[in-house]
Amino acid sequence: MNSSDRKKELLSTTVEHVDIKSFDAREIISAMSGMSFTSRDLARSADIFSKMVEDPDCTVILTLAGSTSAGGCMQIYSDLVASHMVDVIVATGASIVDMDFFEALGFRHYQGSTQVDDSELRDLGIDRIYDTLIDEDELKICDRTIGSIADGLEARAYSSREFILEMGKWLKNNSKKPGSLIETAYDKDVPIFCPAFTDSSAGFGLVMHQHRNKNSHIAIDSVADFRELTEIKIHAGTTGLLIIGGGVPKNFAQDTVIAAELLGSSVNMHKYAVQITVADVRDGACSSSTLREANSWGKVDNVYEQMVFGEATSLLPLLASDAYHKEAWKQRSARRWSRRLFS
Amino acid sequence: MNSSDRKKELLSTTVEHVDIKSFDAREIISAMSGMSFTSRDLARSADIFSKMVEDPDCTVILTLAGSTSAGGCMQIYSDLVASHMVDVIVATGASIVDMDFFEALGFRHYQGSTQVDDSELRDLGIDRIYDTLIDEDELKICDRTIGSIADGLEARAYSSREFILEMGKWLKNNSKKPGSLIETAYDKDVPIFCPAFTDSSAGFGLVMHQHRNKNSHIAIDSVADFRELTEIKIHAGTTGLLIIGGGVPKNFAQDTVIAAELLGSSVNMHKYAVQITVADVRDGACSSSTLREANSWGKVDNVYEQMVFGEATSLLPLLASDAYHKEAWKQRSARRWSRRLFS
Amino acid sequence: MNSSDRKKELLSTTVEHVDIKSFDAREIISAMSGMSFTSRDLARSADIFSKMVEDPDCTVILTLAGSTSAGGCMQIYSDLVASHMVDVIVATGASIVDMDFFEALGFRHYQGSTQVDDSELRDLGIDRIYDTLIDEDELKICDRTIGSIADGLEARAYSSREFILEMGKWLKNNSKKPGSLIETAYDKDVPIFCPAFTDSSAGFGLVMHQHRNKNSHIAIDSVADFRELTEIKIHAGTTGLLIIGGGVPKNFAQDTVIAAELLGSSVNMHKYAVQITVADVRDGACSSSTLREANSWGKVDNVYEQMVFGEATSLLPLLASDAYHKEAWKQRSARRWSRRLFS
Amino acid sequence: MNSSDRKKELLSTTVEHVDIKSFDAREIISAMSGMSFTSRDLARSADIFSKMVEDPDCTVILTLAGSTSAGGCMQIYSDLVASHMVDVIVATGASIVDMDFFEALGFRHYQGSTQVDDSELRDLGIDRIYDTLIDEDELKICDRTIGSIADGLEARAYSSREFILEMGKWLKNNSKKPGSLIETAYDKDVPIFCPAFTDSSAGFGLVMHQHRNKNSHIAIDSVADFRELTEIKIHAGTTGLLIIGGGVPKNFAQDTVIAAELLGSSVNMHKYAVQITVADVRDGACSSSTLREANSWGKVDNVYEQMVFGEATSLLPLLASDAYHKEAWKQRSARRWSRRLFS
Repeated sequence: MNSSDRKKELLSTTVEHVDIKSFDAREIISAMSGMSFTSRDLARSADIFSKMVEDPDCTVILTLAGSTSAGGCMQIYSDLVASHMVDVIVATGASIVDMDFFEALGFRHYQGSTQVDDSELRDLGIDRIYDTLIDEDELKICDRTIGSIADGLEARAYSSREFILEMGKWLKNNSKKPGSLIETAYDKDVPIFCPAFTDSSAGFGLVMHQHRNKNSHIAIDSVADFRELTEIKIHAGTTGLLIIGGGVPKNFAQDTVIAAELLGSSVNMHKYAVQITVADVRDGACSSSTLREANSWGKVDNVYEQMVFGEATSLLPLLASDAYHKEAWKQRSARRWSRRLFS
Repeated sequence: MNSSDRKKELLSTTVEHVDIKSFDAREIISAMSGMSFTSRDLARSADIFSKMVEDPDCTVILTLAGSTSAGGCMQIYSDLVASHMVDVIVATGASIVDMDFFEALGFRHYQGSTQVDDSELRDLGIDRIYDTLIDEDELKICDRTIGSIADGLEARAYSSREFILEMGKWLKNNSKKPGSLIETAYDKDVPIFCPAFTDSSAGFGLVMHQHRNKNSHIAIDSVADFRELTEIKIHAGTTGLLIIGGGVPKNFAQDTVIAAELLGSSVNMHKYAVQITVADVRDGACSSSTLREANSWGKVDNVYEQMVFGEATSLLPLLASDAYHKEAWKQRSARRWSRRLFS
Repeated sequence: MNSSDRKKELLSTTVEHVDIKSFDAREIISAMSGMSFTSRDLARSADIFSKMVEDPDCTVILTLAGSTSAGGCMQIYSDLVASHMVDVIVATGASIVDMDFFEALGFRHYQGSTQVDDSELRDLGIDRIYDTLIDEDELKICDRTIGSIADGLEARAYSSREFILEMGKWLKNNSKKPGSLIETAYDKDVPIFCPAFTDSSAGFGLVMHQHRNKNSHIAIDSVADFRELTEIKIHAGTTGLLIIGGGVPKNFAQDTVIAAELLGSSVNMHKYAVQITVADVRDGACSSSTLREANSWGKVDNVYEQMVFGEATSLLPLLASDAYHKEAWKQRSARRWSRRLFS
Repeated sequence: MNSSDRKKELLSTTVEHVDIKSFDAREIISAMSGMSFTSRDLARSADIFSKMVEDPDCTVILTLAGSTSAGGCMQIYSDLVASHMVDVIVATGASIVDMDFFEALGFRHYQGSTQVDDSELRDLGIDRIYDTLIDEDELKICDRTIGSIADGLEARAYSSREFILEMGKWLKNNSKKPGSLIETAYDKDVPIFCPAFTDSSAGFGLVMHQHRNKNSHIAIDSVADFRELTEIKIHAGTTGLLIIGGGVPKNFAQDTVIAAELLGSSVNMHKYAVQITVADVRDGACSSSTLREANSWGKVDNVYEQMVFGEATSLLPLLASDAYHKEAWKQRSARRWSRRLFS
């Protein structure tokens, strides 16, 4: 088989994103609330997430790290935004650019296997994420698109939120797949922050942009991100965290409580918090640090918090479908933080 | 609060066993088959389990280790036996005696927390399994019941299967909760093996029995278990494994292929195998060893095998509900290995 | 390459067992006691193990599960017995028969890789344990040797301890590698219990033995094991546990406290306990259950207990070398429980 | 006890950083190379790290994520830089600011426990990192010091490397503890990059700085970081990665290979790479993605790569002490990338 055919063969089965509207998980979540171990933890986290959605004062912050968007959860995040169950997003650059923006450009993720020869993949121009595959040529188009968006902007420092807003604007005219998370968030004035924006396909695009515009180029100021997210925390009052994975987004969102204090605004800790993660508590890293530990830092209240130690693609669809079908979101209106604070 | 009230308070919320008949997981499993990571692994394992059930020649062996029976999965196992989706069981003594037999006596498991003072629990006579609690006084009644069943038997060596058959017989007249796994298996002639039977509440009962009958008492001969299980493998031909946890039951069931060869019967490897476990592959223990590794030993075929690295209470209900609602079991008849080989 | 050459190539580099006498880990352990996370846990567990050894009243029970003996720790266990730092052993059948007895017969484990084609290994007759390889033909000799030892014994029920004593006796005349754990334990009157003895190479040998001696054969009575180990607990008074892995051996050794009570002897909980394991606490299985949880069951005291969540081959050599070079064992004499209680 | 005394009691035992010069791990590492599982992985990773140090053309990049600096490894990193075994550092902001800079200010980390009441800690102003404690008042001084360093700088966009250089300059006059990583790196012209610099104590200081200098303040441009690190990769040619934890630093350092290509410079993949992490491969996140997977992306060569799945405080001291005592570093000279490229 020649390499082009082999590549086609390997990239033949697309990842299909789960649709939480198509099945009703309320009964299984309800049954799990009477069980033990991870099932009960999951049911309790679903209950706390419902409390966030039902609380009319609560701004819900979704934090994303890891590859769940590539792995079939991309539609969940759009649906949560579209139905006003998420008001702010803090994510890794990869979740937003390499995965969501990438699919908005019309590209796809493919089902692969962990039992492969990575050097063959390299030769074929296929990138692997555990059991999931990407066409590297398409990813480079994604990099370059970011670069050309940057080329069209006024040369100054931007927060990642500002830049992602421009990506949303661009997608309104150019997207090949409607309903991406970036576009939905744009429509709903939901701000998206990527505190380590450069650590992604966006970084490649922006490095090229700075390289070809040596004396006059845009910069991504992550301090501005922190300032803006803290402003939201200050105005929001009550907040809840839905943490998928851990990483920088988790810590960044938690830290706004402290930052608000340092800026002279006394705010409450995050009132609600749930985290789904496979991280291991043993190494003292933030990704795995329990929400109780965050309580010692004054970041998260200790009444409505729940860790779920499990892999998110298998658990999050249940939590999100449960919340969707409980329909409390029908009483919620869009918070529109982007418009209220930053326009 | 006096200690009796405190004990009542801690033991106030029972664990309720999930009913796979009450919700239909076919759609969520089908959606997961197009995703990645653990969700796709789970969907594939559900698919392989369905293949076992649909294969008219296949004898399905369920192996159980860990505390899923205490944690809300007890009814699943009974339902799988009642609907002829499981033909043989290999389990830890704890799953069968401390959990299933214990609840058949009318006792319950209780929802607790991991954030407790274990020395307080000890003083109150409460035993903890992660976030689940048991009344130690009730567990001692369970121990003694085993002892008294043993007292009534002829003094000779028994396989654990034979002894558990006697427990089933006893439950037909004495059970407080109908439909326990032991009783259902008894009704369906499904043999239950506990290769480390003594490492459980049964061990306590049998030690007391031997202690008070120094010169004439029963023994539990685990070699006989191995011989009998191997005989089933020889007669069954095609076999599939549904492995929950790992431990001795996993290894024991796998080993029958080799044992059959050593006894002169050339048999096929287990044709189907799925395992759900949180075990960690790094330490080379059998619990976590992949089914591919088992292929090197000639125990498990490598076509229909799938590891699911996740916690079973949150994943098994989906797999089992999917199989239940697919209704392939309606075409299956009871294998009745107990009656065919051992009576 | 023909298959014989390929097999030789794959089985060319032997696993070499670490010698704790050849390097002095006292300084690194001492440094780790001032650090955090796993290093401090390891240092504290080394400190508690030293306390067991220094306590003149303490009987030290080593429990073994997993494949550390295959993975280079085999000599550690012999050295601990030879220097009177371990007085009783409770182990999986595999640790004692497939690994220790196997090497005593002159066979070896080989360094392999996890990146292999298991079906090729199967065709070549090579068995894989994670990154470690075994010649299946040699393992079958091990099975058969057990069978022939059984053939030479009087037909009655034996505890696994009794049978392993016979294996020690046999090795005194037949071993190809001196200083195996079984032989050293035989010399030092250290009893070895395998509560799930059949779940190992021994099982294969004993099944063949029973098969060819249908009407008069030996049985392995694991109730007798439990009775004998409980007797040791009753006579020993103060006890400490060094738990490598988890599994049946861990639970079995812990349970003797309860068994002693049921037999009318009030005994203390295990005073000291340390465990090194990669098990994951989330599933409520005994392997991963914390020693604090065991305290709720009244099995382990809560003053000198320490979990170390890590892989044993990389951590145990440090703990054992530290204890060896501290030389407290020079003040200890052999407990000789085998001779004192069972002869 | 009043709260001040209680706080003193809890913060009474300092974490002491391990000194790799004080013990010689060569023998234990050498022994581990003949074992299996994690021990052999660790030995192989030590061997690969030695290869990097011995390769006269190799620039060694250390990436740091997690809390090992707080947990007793802080001195290791300084020693690696001081002895020219590390030429570039990519780290989380917390490792560099909250931990290293914090201790350079004269503050300490304290030994704590995971079994604590986090709400009591919060009331006392104590922050917890797993089993390690910090005085929150001291951390706020750290935040403010960053703010005041920023106040003294010209208002423009800085890479994190540039800002950390200013921190090093400041420490030359103000440090209370000599030999911090920042100061040593400053002396040795070793650049330190924090791609998510704001996600740390630095973020708090910089937010305050921007807040009080609304119209003229510094920004942290992480695109500049990526550009500069890529420039180093282009000039360095041969590179090796020593990856502790994972997170943004791991991905960022790996990505320079691709960024160089996009900028028109064809560079080699990272020739050597080892990673020590507790991350779990199942979720497809970069932290846990194997170095083989990175090979599919064209980032890491597949000849000299090794994952070590274990907790770093217990394993890294062995690897680093082994390399230190092998003394290959005595033949190396400082690469001084900061001076050569950025001054």
